[in-house]
Amino acid sequence: MSREIDRVTPLHGAGGELMDRLLREHVIGRFAERNTGRIGLSALDDGATVDVPDRGELVVTTDSHVVKPVRFPGGDIGRLAAAGTINDLAVMGARPLALTLGLILEVGFPLGELDEILASFAAVLDEVDVPLICGDTKVMGKGELDRIAINTTGIGVAATTDGRAIGDASFSVGDRVLVTGTIGDHGMALMACREEFRLQTTLESDVAPLWPILEPVVRAGVVVAMKDPTRGGLASALNDMARKSGTCIEIVEDTIPVRPEAQGLSDLLGISPLEVANEGKAILVVRAAAVDRVLTSLRVHPLGANAVCIGEVTGEYPRRVILDTGVGGRRFLEMPLGDPVPRIC
Amino acid sequence: MSREIDRVTPLHGAGGELMDRLLREHVIGRFAERNTGRIGLSALDDGATVDVPDRGELVVTTDSHVVKPVRFPGGDIGRLAAAGTINDLAVMGARPLALTLGLILEVGFPLGELDEILASFAAVLDEVDVPLICGDTKVMGKGELDRIAINTTGIGVAATTDGRAIGDASFSVGDRVLVTGTIGDHGMALMACREEFRLQTTLESDVAPLWPILEPVVRAGVVVAMKDPTRGGLASALNDMARKSGTCIEIVEDTIPVRPEAQGLSDLLGISPLEVANEGKAILVVRAAAVDRVLTSLRVHPLGANAVCIGEVTGEYPRRVILDTGVGGRRFLEMPLGDPVPRIC
Repeated sequence: MSREIDRVTPLHGAGGELMDRLLREHVIGRFAERNTGRIGLSALDDGATVDVPDRGELVVTTDSHVVKPVRFPGGDIGRLAAAGTINDLAVMGARPLALTLGLILEVGFPLGELDEILASFAAVLDEVDVPLICGDTKVMGKGELDRIAINTTGIGVAATTDGRAIGDASFSVGDRVLVTGTIGDHGMALMACREEFRLQTTLESDVAPLWPILEPVVRAGVVVAMKDPTRGGLASALNDMARKSGTCIEIVEDTIPVRPEAQGLSDLLGISPLEVANEGKAILVVRAAAVDRVLTSLRVHPLGANAVCIGEVTGEYPRRVILDTGVGGRRFLEMPLGDPVPRIC
Repeated sequence: MSREIDRVTPLHGAGGELMDRLLREHVIGRFAERNTGRIGLSALDDGATVDVPDRGELVVTTDSHVVKPVRFPGGDIGRLAAAGTINDLAVMGARPLALTLGLILEVGFPLGELDEILASFAAVLDEVDVPLICGDTKVMGKGELDRIAINTTGIGVAATTDGRAIGDASFSVGDRVLVTGTIGDHGMALMACREEFRLQTTLESDVAPLWPILEPVVRAGVVVAMKDPTRGGLASALNDMARKSGTCIEIVEDTIPVRPEAQGLSDLLGISPLEVANEGKAILVVRAAAVDRVLTSLRVHPLGANAVCIGEVTGEYPRRVILDTGVGGRRFLEMPLGDPVPRIC
């Protein structure tokens, strides 16, 4: 057995092919699928549903955040942890009910900096009016943890018309694929500010809670599937959706909104904006007839101002993603091995 | 401001006076108490309740585990993470419905060891028949994390006769205080196996899920309050309960069950077994008339075989804990500054 296979590598946590393999080969099979809800562990969705006896369906999601650096252009680990968890609920069509906060701190971490991080975390909860209900604090010795890690679990209830959570794969041929805004901002902004590059750029992370723009379209019952393209970016999320649904997703490169600053960094660093994490964007799949209505709704809010349709669901190459590159060119958009930026979130 | 106050110290995560101060001064005030359930963030209970619209009260708890070493006599970080979370639900009178699993791994962590940890985690879930519903995996670079950290969030529903979770402070003068078994096993076993000591002992951690022994007494409606004495041990848990309830708790030293091996290590290391973590024990407060019935129920199961009454609730010194040390001696059992064993759980 090669060394790559019997030990954890950076790509095992990078949201692509290798993380998927880790979960399928080492995690999922070990846990019996008991009386969970409709969307359980093996769905590998943004979260899961749990049936509460006589009380219906809850949506639950959990995320640890180890982003480096702790503060970055456009946000910090506190804002990221809160928004990331709210977004995982939001893309399942769930109104956030409550969040938990698990802090792991390195000895010597400045309490003043912790205060700033918690203020950022709290500000996001204020934006979406969600309570923090409980937490946990652990401390590791000097050199045992690189500063801080934050886990957040979110609990929500589906705000859909039928009270059922929205998955990321229940769509069919003919449906359209939308994104709520520009792609690649978080990953490229993080990459640029890393010590090894320290590039000058005005690009900021897009980290933001999406429930305010997703709630109206969820309540209207016009969303077929949703997913937030975090680690591994749009490429990973679309491949995941194509594989799970057994369909082909075809997108048009020219229609994907990418900020000029993100494209510039991409050209400089040789990293595709489609393969890096977004932290304030969602992919929506809707029926063709609903596209205009959904885009109009999303664009009302600044967070959805650049929402656009980027492609459609076909039956051409099941479980694959096709990228139309213009002037008649087409290629597969592959599942990345993992996000090229370590500790991106 | 002194260096102790403006930076994180080991005691900030050690379950005693300093952690309490960190939470009260830096965390709680920042988060508005919104429409949470009856037991919210500021209760600093083992978990919290969340009201689900039209669906009643849920119990939620979260814990990160950073125990060192990862494998220890009687268990490992996987068993600890699952049991710890189930116990936090159990002492709130809640039947566990579902668990989440947030893994943070250091690059190079052996997948074979991860398999063993996950098998331990899964075995506990099998013992109590609870599903793992979702998770998250992050990887940190070599030297950025000491091997592995695991966060687990648990969701449950109160199995009490009135459907309401059991807090840790709603008792009154005359009530009796019970423990479900020997005190100090986990902390002393961990201490003994640490590299700096490597002491020979047959003592093992008590890590175990307590729902099987607590469910019958919860369903019988005879428990007034419960808490699991983890970090900071019995001393921290009882002081916390006395402070919150505004009562005095008086316990009799000779009645507290302590294994001879634990007492021996305690004498050797100069650490009180009452101040170190337990991971398979609960403190129960019951009405005086229910003591025999509760003890009989607990003792049916091996996990409760050593259950015993250790004291009672009085009005003598409100918010304090008194220890009867025999032959007429009495002293305050103080809130420890924190558990003396770092990374105990």
